[in-house]
Amino acid sequence: VASRQVLVLPGDGIGPEIVAQAERVLARVNDKFALGINIEKGLVGGAAIDAHGSPLPEITLEKAKACDAVLLGAVGGPKWDSVDMSIRPEKGLLGLRSNLNLFGNLRPAILYPQLADASSLKPELVAGLDLLIVRELTGGIYFGQPRGIRELENGEREGFNTYKYSESEVRRIGRQAFEAAQKRGGKLCSVDKANVLEATVLWREVMDELAKDYPDVELTHMYVDNAAMQLVRAPKQFDVMVTGNMFGDILSDCAAMLTGSIGMLPSASLDENGKGMYEPIHGSAPDIAGQGIANPLATILSVAMMLRYSFDEADAAQAIEDAVGVTLDQGFRTADIQSEGMNLVSTEQMGDAVLAAL
Amino acid sequence: VASRQVLVLPGDGIGPEIVAQAERVLARVNDKFALGINIEKGLVGGAAIDAHGSPLPEITLEKAKACDAVLLGAVGGPKWDSVDMSIRPEKGLLGLRSNLNLFGNLRPAILYPQLADASSLKPELVAGLDLLIVRELTGGIYFGQPRGIRELENGEREGFNTYKYSESEVRRIGRQAFEAAQKRGGKLCSVDKANVLEATVLWREVMDELAKDYPDVELTHMYVDNAAMQLVRAPKQFDVMVTGNMFGDILSDCAAMLTGSIGMLPSASLDENGKGMYEPIHGSAPDIAGQGIANPLATILSVAMMLRYSFDEADAAQAIEDAVGVTLDQGFRTADIQSEGMNLVSTEQMGDAVLAAL
Ligand SMILES: CC(C)[C@H](C(=O)O)[C@@H](O)C(=O)O
Ligand SMILES: CC(C)[C@H](C(=O)O)[C@@H](O)C(=O)O
Repeated sequence: VASRQVLVLPGDGIGPEIVAQAERVLARVNDKFALGINIEKGLVGGAAIDAHGSPLPEITLEKAKACDAVLLGAVGGPKWDSVDMSIRPEKGLLGLRSNLNLFGNLRPAILYPQLADASSLKPELVAGLDLLIVRELTGGIYFGQPRGIRELENGEREGFNTYKYSESEVRRIGRQAFEAAQKRGGKLCSVDKANVLEATVLWREVMDELAKDYPDVELTHMYVDNAAMQLVRAPKQFDVMVTGNMFGDILSDCAAMLTGSIGMLPSASLDENGKGMYEPIHGSAPDIAGQGIANPLATILSVAMMLRYSFDEADAAQAIEDAVGVTLDQGFRTADIQSEGMNLVSTEQMGDAVLAAL
Repeated sequence: VASRQVLVLPGDGIGPEIVAQAERVLARVNDKFALGINIEKGLVGGAAIDAHGSPLPEITLEKAKACDAVLLGAVGGPKWDSVDMSIRPEKGLLGLRSNLNLFGNLRPAILYPQLADASSLKPELVAGLDLLIVRELTGGIYFGQPRGIRELENGEREGFNTYKYSESEVRRIGRQAFEAAQKRGGKLCSVDKANVLEATVLWREVMDELAKDYPDVELTHMYVDNAAMQLVRAPKQFDVMVTGNMFGDILSDCAAMLTGSIGMLPSASLDENGKGMYEPIHGSAPDIAGQGIANPLATILSVAMMLRYSFDEADAAQAIEDAVGVTLDQGFRTADIQSEGMNLVSTEQMGDAVLAAL
């Protein structure tokens, strides 16, 4: 196997703690399955601001461009809340997405049967929930120009942003979503606000065109307000959902919360060629950072996604996912997923348990 | 009492059926409390397209400007899905909001104890739920210019919209929200995406400034993705939420669905002087239109909001709300809120029951 380069960016808050456990797991499967993966480290977010004055230092970006996949912890925290918008920790994350062209964000929302109780929804509505949100990640209002805060003629200020999508941007995320649907339940729901926003009128048109190339996928459209309702009302009606950057941010967090266990959910952000960045869906949780109690499973499962999507190593990926399942079956729980009668463990002990199960 | 003019716009789908019942209720309290209200009728949405070729005919707009309050059913339906964006039924609604300057949209999400089972959330998480979303309704990306679909230099098309808020726009909706919080639990959560969107950086700044004028209200800020999660996780943490047009569209539908009974939820859209448009939160439900089975209670409760906000007739408003409570206590249920052992009634029978309780 040719040498494979993985860049690990622990980031801020609980990032370093959870990434440490994911690295142990990655090292183990690397050995066991002879994956030939080399690990390098880098700084991003608040940690990079502290060290280099920038949330995405040149050296980190170079390493990220050179590697085959990135494993990220999480960025941000109150410490950097008052720094200028242009150098906030989030800009490190957004800069990576944009510079690496990671336009396709896959966010699964899966309810683990062992954690069925954790959902705030009634059990019958979420049992077996397994949906995938495909979010466009390098366009839309997140990156649209012009943007800023300007002074109007009457002297008051106005904040403004631009929401836009070109046909080719919609087409490439659309293809990713149709292909994902083909490999899953064959159902794709495209979410827009085509009754109000022209940007999404074009989005809908392109999705309809693409549908002709995927006759085995059933495409439907839904307005974003209705999609938010339907996720709460009957989430199991969905298989794959595809939407723009902003709506995807909102809906994927909503969907994740339906499982009640966002400490369990990984994500992948992919470019055209399978290069990707992998990170847990949850944030840097500054309130519990440094206590060794964070749940490392979302990051460990992000490693599994990496092996599957960037390295085409389905067996190794499956081994990790199975090990996580065994760990849950054995009753190990970090504080965020703890329930009565279960075995409360620390971040590191959870890592130990997964390694033991591997 | 000086003569008070109410314009009734039944609209499309189930609109005419539910509005008919609300009108009966309005007529009854008008008599009983000697409110001096005159009712006029008009066309809007698809019904107006069919009759006049426009979703908001000049005559409707004139009547709307001249009256003291508008009662609206709902607009839209598949029949008009293929007409040009500029004359779709939704444009009638948006045109009314904008032309009447109805910038403040109040959307309560209340769980009726009689309907506690209808929620998809676990009972303990929603019991007693009573939150109010204050949505900015005449600005933001809904109305921002420039907008449209254009051809790029490389020949492909791009759809674009503009998201913007000026300080004065934020200030007036902010004041409405702070005042609402003062009259309720004293807690206001402002929702934005200030870590990414400059338009909402200014929003947050203005909210912070306003807070100084309302020392009795506790202001917090939340990112919109987190707000969507928190609504699903623990909705009772909120009292009043205030946000922009687009986020408000999404979050208010999500919040409404938490109650499981969107057939029960009214809304008010207010201008600076208490003139308002009142409508149910739910849509025109074309799939059940004409069957006489729609739930008229959200529209009836919209009449109560009208009496309270536009006419300062708290007693008459309360009488309607109490009558709805009695009707539910008596076990009357339309199909959307039906549960075992309850008395399934038609739209008109539900109207009868409320009238009887009045
Ligand atoms: C941190 C923030 C910029 C980011 C986003 O909005 O994309 C986060 O919420 C996410 O969903 O990954
Ligand atoms: C019909 C549509 C234009 C409208 C909106 O998006 O504002 C509706 O969803 C609402 O919330 O009143």
